Amino acid sequence: MSATPRAVTRLVEAFSRLPGIGPKTASRLTYFLLRGNQQEALMLAEALQALHAQTQLCSVCCNISESDPCDVCADDRRDGGIICVVEEPLDVLAIENTAAFRGRYHVLHGHLSPMERVGPDELRMRELVTRVEAGGVDEVIVATNPTLEGDATAVYLTRLLSPLKVQVTRLALGLPRGGDVEYADRMTLSEAIAGRREISI
Amino acid sequence: MSATPRAVTRLVEAFSRLPGIGPKTASRLTYFLLRGNQQEALMLAEALQALHAQTQLCSVCCNISESDPCDVCADDRRDGGIICVVEEPLDVLAIENTAAFRGRYHVLHGHLSPMERVGPDELRMRELVTRVEAGGVDEVIVATNPTLEGDATAVYLTRLLSPLKVQVTRLALGLPRGGDVEYADRMTLSEAIAGRREISI
Repeated sequence: MSATPRAVTRLVEAFSRLPGIGPKTASRLTYFLLRGNQQEALMLAEALQALHAQTQLCSVCCNISESDPCDVCADDRRDGGIICVVEEPLDVLAIENTAAFRGRYHVLHGHLSPMERVGPDELRMRELVTRVEAGGVDEVIVATNPTLEGDATAVYLTRLLSPLKVQVTRLALGLPRGGDVEYADRMTLSEAIAGRREISI
Repeated sequence: MSATPRAVTRLVEAFSRLPGIGPKTASRLTYFLLRGNQQEALMLAEALQALHAQTQLCSVCCNISESDPCDVCADDRRDGGIICVVEEPLDVLAIENTAAFRGRYHVLHGHLSPMERVGPDELRMRELVTRVEAGGVDEVIVATNPTLEGDATAVYLTRLLSPLKVQVTRLALGLPRGGDVEYADRMTLSEAIAGRREISI
């Protein structure tokens, strides 16, 4: 016998399985939805059901999309000569938000990680090579994260693409805008020094 | 034109409406579910749909329950002479977890708050008075939160119940177990001093 209805514990457990949501937060969310009207909970339920049903991977860039090819790959105004390789679909969003890139993307869906048993075959690397082999690509920007795994993935990709005549570049490392030299970590500061550029006036 | 499928933004927006979940966390949750298998998202969806469909308010104590009366109210072994009044269903759970209370409950579903336009009529106070008027209740423990609003609610309830011959008590205030006198805030320490008890040996 328990003071909690089965429907409540079930939702608390379902919320708890999400990353970063512990049992306390899961309870809070559940009782928030219980207090509110049923419509709120049902809207969230419908959005969850539509998530996989209405999305697929773009067969060109492997990004998550509702159409195949995705909007970016289908857009003639995007520059097919530059491919920006990212780890996750969220990275595409972040770069799109800058409006600083008008090329195309390629989503690896992860990074190389021997510890997590993620090798080249678990990532969308073959698809990238096929795209570059098809020609018309001048530059591949490797925009994996500036982490050990992201670096290893970038090096691996560079070797993989080296037989093909394509320039492989990597995002600049340095101080973040609004950052502080005094508080920058040693690695970042070293990289900012190594990557210093002439001031043009 | 956007790089994000409608189904993704819809779920991000739905998650963002939950308390304590900002747009960043909502994106993270959505892409976590996208990466995982569809089953995970559908299980959460079903739990959400069942939440209101399979729960109701107990007509006696106003707690959320799958049956009416709820398990606690239907349990003959619980002491009907003591009613513990709480603000929220989660408070019932917390008190049940202590196993220190064998009486019954009454859930107000909030606290008095003129700022948020919550008056006595928005809370389940009438139902409590009816229960006490029906007789057989010796003590009402007001277990509202030790906050301004919880205190105001407790005072209001005490006045409301004063014509009825029932003892109205409030949870003890003091240092939390494992706490530290040095770091206790002034209010808590004052209340711990005012509520000091003789040491029995």
